[in-house]
Amino acid sequence: MKVKINKLLTKDKTLFLAYDQGLEHGPKEFNDNNVDHKNIIYLAKKGKFNGIVFKKGIAEKYQTEIKKSKIPLIIKLNGKTNLLKGEPISRQICSVEEAIEVGASAVGYTIYIGSEHESLMLEEFGKIEKEAHEKGIPVVAWIYPRGKSVKGKSKRELMAYATRTGLEIGADIVKIKYEGNLKDLSWAVKSAGRTKVVIAGGTKQNEKEFLEEVKEIKESGAIGLAVGRNVWQNPKPLKITKKIKKIVFKNDSNKS
Amino acid sequence: MKVKINKLLTKDKTLFLAYDQGLEHGPKEFNDNNVDHKNIIYLAKKGKFNGIVFKKGIAEKYQTEIKKSKIPLIIKLNGKTNLLKGEPISRQICSVEEAIEVGASAVGYTIYIGSEHESLMLEEFGKIEKEAHEKGIPVVAWIYPRGKSVKGKSKRELMAYATRTGLEIGADIVKIKYEGNLKDLSWAVKSAGRTKVVIAGGTKQNEKEFLEEVKEIKESGAIGLAVGRNVWQNPKPLKITKKIKKIVFKNDSNKS
Amino acid sequence: MKVKINKLLTKDKTLFLAYDQGLEHGPKEFNDNNVDHKNIIYLAKKGKFNGIVFKKGIAEKYQTEIKKSKIPLIIKLNGKTNLLKGEPISRQICSVEEAIEVGASAVGYTIYIGSEHESLMLEEFGKIEKEAHEKGIPVVAWIYPRGKSVKGKSKRELMAYATRTGLEIGADIVKIKYEGNLKDLSWAVKSAGRTKVVIAGGTKQNEKEFLEEVKEIKESGAIGLAVGRNVWQNPKPLKITKKIKKIVFKNDSNKS
Amino acid sequence: MKVKINKLLTKDKTLFLAYDQGLEHGPKEFNDNNVDHKNIIYLAKKGKFNGIVFKKGIAEKYQTEIKKSKIPLIIKLNGKTNLLKGEPISRQICSVEEAIEVGASAVGYTIYIGSEHESLMLEEFGKIEKEAHEKGIPVVAWIYPRGKSVKGKSKRELMAYATRTGLEIGADIVKIKYEGNLKDLSWAVKSAGRTKVVIAGGTKQNEKEFLEEVKEIKESGAIGLAVGRNVWQNPKPLKITKKIKKIVFKNDSNKS
Amino acid sequence: MKVKINKLLTKDKTLFLAYDQGLEHGPKEFNDNNVDHKNIIYLAKKGKFNGIVFKKGIAEKYQTEIKKSKIPLIIKLNGKTNLLKGEPISRQICSVEEAIEVGASAVGYTIYIGSEHESLMLEEFGKIEKEAHEKGIPVVAWIYPRGKSVKGKSKRELMAYATRTGLEIGADIVKIKYEGNLKDLSWAVKSAGRTKVVIAGGTKQNEKEFLEEVKEIKESGAIGLAVGRNVWQNPKPLKITKKIKKIVFKNDSNKS
Repeated sequence: MKVKINKLLTKDKTLFLAYDQGLEHGPKEFNDNNVDHKNIIYLAKKGKFNGIVFKKGIAEKYQTEIKKSKIPLIIKLNGKTNLLKGEPISRQICSVEEAIEVGASAVGYTIYIGSEHESLMLEEFGKIEKEAHEKGIPVVAWIYPRGKSVKGKSKRELMAYATRTGLEIGADIVKIKYEGNLKDLSWAVKSAGRTKVVIAGGTKQNEKEFLEEVKEIKESGAIGLAVGRNVWQNPKPLKITKKIKKIVFKNDSNKS
Repeated sequence: MKVKINKLLTKDKTLFLAYDQGLEHGPKEFNDNNVDHKNIIYLAKKGKFNGIVFKKGIAEKYQTEIKKSKIPLIIKLNGKTNLLKGEPISRQICSVEEAIEVGASAVGYTIYIGSEHESLMLEEFGKIEKEAHEKGIPVVAWIYPRGKSVKGKSKRELMAYATRTGLEIGADIVKIKYEGNLKDLSWAVKSAGRTKVVIAGGTKQNEKEFLEEVKEIKESGAIGLAVGRNVWQNPKPLKITKKIKKIVFKNDSNKS
Repeated sequence: MKVKINKLLTKDKTLFLAYDQGLEHGPKEFNDNNVDHKNIIYLAKKGKFNGIVFKKGIAEKYQTEIKKSKIPLIIKLNGKTNLLKGEPISRQICSVEEAIEVGASAVGYTIYIGSEHESLMLEEFGKIEKEAHEKGIPVVAWIYPRGKSVKGKSKRELMAYATRTGLEIGADIVKIKYEGNLKDLSWAVKSAGRTKVVIAGGTKQNEKEFLEEVKEIKESGAIGLAVGRNVWQNPKPLKITKKIKKIVFKNDSNKS
Repeated sequence: MKVKINKLLTKDKTLFLAYDQGLEHGPKEFNDNNVDHKNIIYLAKKGKFNGIVFKKGIAEKYQTEIKKSKIPLIIKLNGKTNLLKGEPISRQICSVEEAIEVGASAVGYTIYIGSEHESLMLEEFGKIEKEAHEKGIPVVAWIYPRGKSVKGKSKRELMAYATRTGLEIGADIVKIKYEGNLKDLSWAVKSAGRTKVVIAGGTKQNEKEFLEEVKEIKESGAIGLAVGRNVWQNPKPLKITKKIKKIVFKNDSNKS
Repeated sequence: MKVKINKLLTKDKTLFLAYDQGLEHGPKEFNDNNVDHKNIIYLAKKGKFNGIVFKKGIAEKYQTEIKKSKIPLIIKLNGKTNLLKGEPISRQICSVEEAIEVGASAVGYTIYIGSEHESLMLEEFGKIEKEAHEKGIPVVAWIYPRGKSVKGKSKRELMAYATRTGLEIGADIVKIKYEGNLKDLSWAVKSAGRTKVVIAGGTKQNEKEFLEEVKEIKESGAIGLAVGRNVWQNPKPLKITKKIKKIVFKNDSNKS
């Protein structure tokens, strides 16, 4: 079955709003305003994001608001708290079937390559990818090199390894962290072949520096970003969203 | 399917009688009177609790008395003894199907976030939540931060992380321990979004102090408590129940 | 479906002949006579036991003799050798379906509470209990506190924890070791609620002391014993059986 | 269903040709001649063995020759290399269904009792025994005490424990190593009850000593041997086969 | 069902193009040209390889090009990154069913014999082999001795153990590394019986030395090579391909 990915793109570029930090990092990331999903859904709608990333609990309890917003829903199928240190493992807590039932346009899954539990996550992803693709649902792989085995490896190598892993295992979009320089990121994008690359917004930064980074991401050939804290922790989230979109969706002659 | 949660609430507030300590803590919690389920069921009935928490063995062997009492039954699906120290793991010992068969109005499951086995419990909860919701059965998540990884973390952070986890994974009600102050608990309730928060009664306390705590719980926006030892270890359990109910169900202008 | 437990009882009391030591302890427990199942089945028949405990291999290979004896068959579904030291784990080696097929009137399963593998056994028991009860087959739980975590705990606490665990997880009969005093055992019987308590005969003792113990067991409210070595290692097994039965089945006004 | 064991016996005695050493020990056991399955199948046919033991790969690739030989095929369902030291674990690599499809008259499975992984193998054997017996296929259990927990145990105890385990878990034939003396082996045979005992030929020995051992095996009541290296590593394998058969199948008044 | 292996052979010899290094080694193996699958598919087509080895992600995203090339597709079903050190484990990430759906003519699977996780891979391979053979699909086993248990073992022993393992578990083709001398490799080929042996090209070498090695491989009786880096890292990949093919497909009187 043909994978319906266009729903997540605007002229082959994209901007997702990521909001699964409640489980992945804990509420310490939030304030009285952004702790509330209604505000996040409102932001996604007003900012006309290409997708909003939630865990299944949210998707179920805020179904009405999400559907009304018409923003495509991406369900992250696995998850963990950040309390446990050591080699990370994140298992599936939502099935592809459940995601589709609450209206997901895509599913996501995180793989910590290099972790002692890497093989369990690669295996689980394999089954999810099969099931989602049979139903025409695109799969987004969050791929992060982690664990003691990646200590000291070059950022260039690790970024490209992450995107390439996404391609090899069948992800339609691979989401990575941008940690090197533009040249390294371009190589990572190239290594991803026909898998599209999206960059995680990461921890909150100085706005100017962040927008500089967005420009580099654009130049690298990545199709866009999945922003979270740099937007909803910003006192004026819609304003910064506009600035980001201006860069991401600018017409130019980048690799298509 | 719509989750039938109203059966467990009185005007959006609730008071559960918890009695799964026989497995979780062992009979050392009991005396000649409260060791007997018949007495507990009698207490639940006389005290008009909104729900009574049992393990499946009890629900099967005391089915007649439980049904006659008309108190909604909440089956805790997983369980463990407290003999084993170290990183806790509690696995499913009763299926959703079995719980429904013995007449459960809701199912419960404990997750020890921060434990080395967290991912196994999150995964198992995911499947239970799916099955229960398909049948319209509400799911109560007992979420307790545990294990060496949570040592030294702030109580505020841990309480809010527990309630938020409940929301993100799809619990209808999340039960936590109240360990910080009112402000911290209010934040935890806020972090839970549309997942309702219930507080564990915890170890037996001085009655006055306990009732003070109940007032704070009420103020925090939590919908109520799941009391156990503070009631059935009390020499006059019905009298203390009345006092708790007076606070929990008092009409006021709290967050609804 | 109603659990058919009466087949295992005589006026609510019982005496089982346990003979799964071949796997659990090894043939060093046996001599030329009691190593042979035919002799054990003969003993069970002559002694009119309420049940005989075998592993599935025996039940299959001695099916004709067992059926002819008309003694109810209890199949122990899990098992392990005693070669491996450390935290015990015993997994299912016979299904409920197989047990029924060879004519079992009940199934048994051992759980080592306190062991690092406790949760695996509780989980497996949960599935067995479901399947057996759906078919009206009673479930006997052998519950033994074990592993380094139970070192130093009081015998009273451990005995009661074992019987209570049996009740909470849905066993119809819980078999424990008698290691404390009469008062402690009575408390354990009380903690078991509607789950019936049977005491393991244990290692071979002086006959007089053993019969003293049987009297205490009778007084405690336990429904009887599962004897093994104290009978079939006795030079006159039928004679000692009669003495035990006289105590166990004596009419009196004990708790019913 | 009745288990069809007679196909593997000649007047209740048997001689198997074992040839699974390629996986279990590696090709270092072989020379240019015995490395080739065709030669082994030829030997089995000429020597009129009661059974030939292969892994599934061989059974598939040499199906034509095996069928033509008319020697009953025994498929060993699990296997491992001997590269890894430490507590042994051998998992199922061929299903009962596959074995039947390639024409197996029996299936085999190795259990290392005493190993830290004992419970996994006992559990897996349990399922295999069920499936095979439902289809009338006999099950041969290779049972070897192994791992650090068996260090220092008496050979008498271990041999008898191995055979008894075979009986308790439902094996039709149990294959053990002969490591003690005749008296010990006779006790092991007695401990096996109605499970037949077959002795592993073991490492290559001086021919005279080996034939002495065969006589003791005969006297012990074991039904025969599963020979491998002592035959196919022998420069004249058919000649030694004849000598072994003369002992094994000699008419006498041993236990039947 | 008959296994369709001829599609992968030219007069019983073969040359595969291996390109799963993106996941197994990471993109550091690539340059701007060979990072791109289109170029690799072009090379496979122009070089008329007997098969091309991809992971499922590639097979899905470059399906059109692969089909057009008419080069038989071999899907490697399991995979891992090389970030994690220690005892290797590689789990299934693509099902046989998926491989067939994208047009695979064969499936591959890597087993690290000697690794602490050997038994998991042998077990998984067993299921894959069954499923593939039921559908007539040949199975290629990559078998590499690994982990601390193989330190210090002779290369001769390990090569032969690898090929023999392939035979015993049912592989149609076994792929190993050539690390000893011609005599050792010939022994390994002999140990493989009716399982065909293919040699991994390995790390990039001096061209002359590499072609010398190819000659030895030819002489050993192996049916060919699976080349990767020695071809696509070569500045003139088609030229070196021709040289290899000239050796591999030369008519001679080697073992058939």
